[in-house]
Amino acid sequence: MAKKKSPNIAVVGATGKVGEVMRELLASRNFPLSDIRFMASARSAGKELEWNGTKIVVEDAKEADFSGVDIAIFSAGATTSRNLAPVVASAGAIVIDNSSAWRMDDEVPLVVAEVNPHTLGDIEKGGDIKKGIIANPNCTTMVGMVPLKPLHQKATLKRMVVSTYQAVSGAGYAGVEELMAQIEDASSPPKVFDAQIALNVVPKCGDYLEGETIGAETIEEKKLTDETRKILEIPDLPVSATCVRVGVDTGHSLSINAEFENAISPEEAVEILNQAPGVVVEDLPNPIQSQNVDGVSVGRIRKDPTVPNGLALFVVGDNLRKGAALNAIQIAELFINR
Amino acid sequence: MAKKKSPNIAVVGATGKVGEVMRELLASRNFPLSDIRFMASARSAGKELEWNGTKIVVEDAKEADFSGVDIAIFSAGATTSRNLAPVVASAGAIVIDNSSAWRMDDEVPLVVAEVNPHTLGDIEKGGDIKKGIIANPNCTTMVGMVPLKPLHQKATLKRMVVSTYQAVSGAGYAGVEELMAQIEDASSPPKVFDAQIALNVVPKCGDYLEGETIGAETIEEKKLTDETRKILEIPDLPVSATCVRVGVDTGHSLSINAEFENAISPEEAVEILNQAPGVVVEDLPNPIQSQNVDGVSVGRIRKDPTVPNGLALFVVGDNLRKGAALNAIQIAELFINR
Repeated sequence: MAKKKSPNIAVVGATGKVGEVMRELLASRNFPLSDIRFMASARSAGKELEWNGTKIVVEDAKEADFSGVDIAIFSAGATTSRNLAPVVASAGAIVIDNSSAWRMDDEVPLVVAEVNPHTLGDIEKGGDIKKGIIANPNCTTMVGMVPLKPLHQKATLKRMVVSTYQAVSGAGYAGVEELMAQIEDASSPPKVFDAQIALNVVPKCGDYLEGETIGAETIEEKKLTDETRKILEIPDLPVSATCVRVGVDTGHSLSINAEFENAISPEEAVEILNQAPGVVVEDLPNPIQSQNVDGVSVGRIRKDPTVPNGLALFVVGDNLRKGAALNAIQIAELFINR
Repeated sequence: MAKKKSPNIAVVGATGKVGEVMRELLASRNFPLSDIRFMASARSAGKELEWNGTKIVVEDAKEADFSGVDIAIFSAGATTSRNLAPVVASAGAIVIDNSSAWRMDDEVPLVVAEVNPHTLGDIEKGGDIKKGIIANPNCTTMVGMVPLKPLHQKATLKRMVVSTYQAVSGAGYAGVEELMAQIEDASSPPKVFDAQIALNVVPKCGDYLEGETIGAETIEEKKLTDETRKILEIPDLPVSATCVRVGVDTGHSLSINAEFENAISPEEAVEILNQAPGVVVEDLPNPIQSQNVDGVSVGRIRKDPTVPNGLALFVVGDNLRKGAALNAIQIAELFINR
């Protein structure tokens, strides 16, 4: 195969929690790049960030000239992505965006690298990326999809009930700081979360969809439903999601009850998951153990006896890594390793 | 109504975590008693415990003479209860037992005070307590039953999926100490729990039923299933339970997906729960807020769209209080307030 020129990379949102992991992974995975630029908001512009022993000055993303950038990996929030991603894509880059801005756009592939890379089209021919933008799923959804896809392929997913145990780093540096401050002093007031998060469980991640609280779903719960349907290509999949924040630094957990069209035993599920890319079958998956690990851990694989073809499983993944930064870089790698 | 003599009370397991709350509640609720005795294992015998400004010397429960005791409240573990409860009942006391020893015995009522006091028989006539033993449910089950019963009465519970968020005090002083030690020093090794519990989530409470891990249910999950069926008198209720320990001191949470025979909207559920004894409808129930509160908090009441008549709800209760000590004392009060 002819060796192509390594791409020029830009990381937009390089100073954030996910941006930090992106920089680490681009280095540790020896991502083949010709040039790398770090960008962030005006507030962080001018700051210097380490890169392979040298320092790179952070640029103001809004003022930056993106010409020559081949792949821009965004983790800078939905508003920035909504405004900036089309501009950067027009300048010729492929944008891989970690925000929610583009995920449900019909012309934007929503990709989990191990699960649905086919939605990128024929990558040999540059892929079929209409808007020049590829969306990285929500961190909770991402962790769930890695084991659910192979089980769905085997037995056809029909219905899903999920309760989550989500880490504070899903809310960035501010979330982690709030947890740590409250561990030091429980009276440190909640700002990021709706109640004290240290030594507590808060059954609400993000805002409610509507102003009401009775019967209202959160945005996070809607993301989990909508993105699961899009990624697994089951447009009407019935989903009931309860998204809960726990006093964990990093590592999102999902307690999943999945009903399938066809019979699938826990033993068959283990066999399938043992072969599945990106999955590690564990006795006791847990967030501490999942930190800085690429694979998604799955355990407690049991029969759900309440439905004809049901499985209960417990899934844990590093929300910053596979849940965000790693998957974005794996998508970029799909365009390199060809 | 003729005033009867206040009973003589014994608390067996008075030095434990639940025993401590029992002593507090007997005092703060002005439980009408003539005499109170505190008992524990030989190890704790001789220790002095505060009682309304005086000190009571802890007796060795195995050596104690129970004659004259009217009500003995046990929270001393299943082995002690299995051996000692029949002896104490033979001596003429009503035993209210917080262990798992007698819960599934067909001749032992398993009582949540607000839910199924009728299983005690006609209390005016001394009740129908064949073995002289009344069982207090498992702390997780207890918290769930308080709101589920009135919803079941309205719409007939048909199927249940539960994922829990259980506090470390469910494992007694040792559980709390392990959490606190690991908050100070994360390398403090797990002994009570199967993995680090500070800043973590461990998807296993107690031992597996069988030696296997694939497909195995835990004892805690089986308790939740079996006790729910017995308390709600739905012998074949399909239940899928995933019991998970979280880094919370006190306050068990349950994410419940309940399917009913008949239609029930979130609005109707809120209306029913607002009237239900022992239930507090909250915007955002959480363990910190539930601590030292009698009522069980319920919130996030939504439609479960994956089944015809489904509700999703989040339930939180103080596992030491309503989950254990309070309910035991409420049962004792049923024999007083007549």
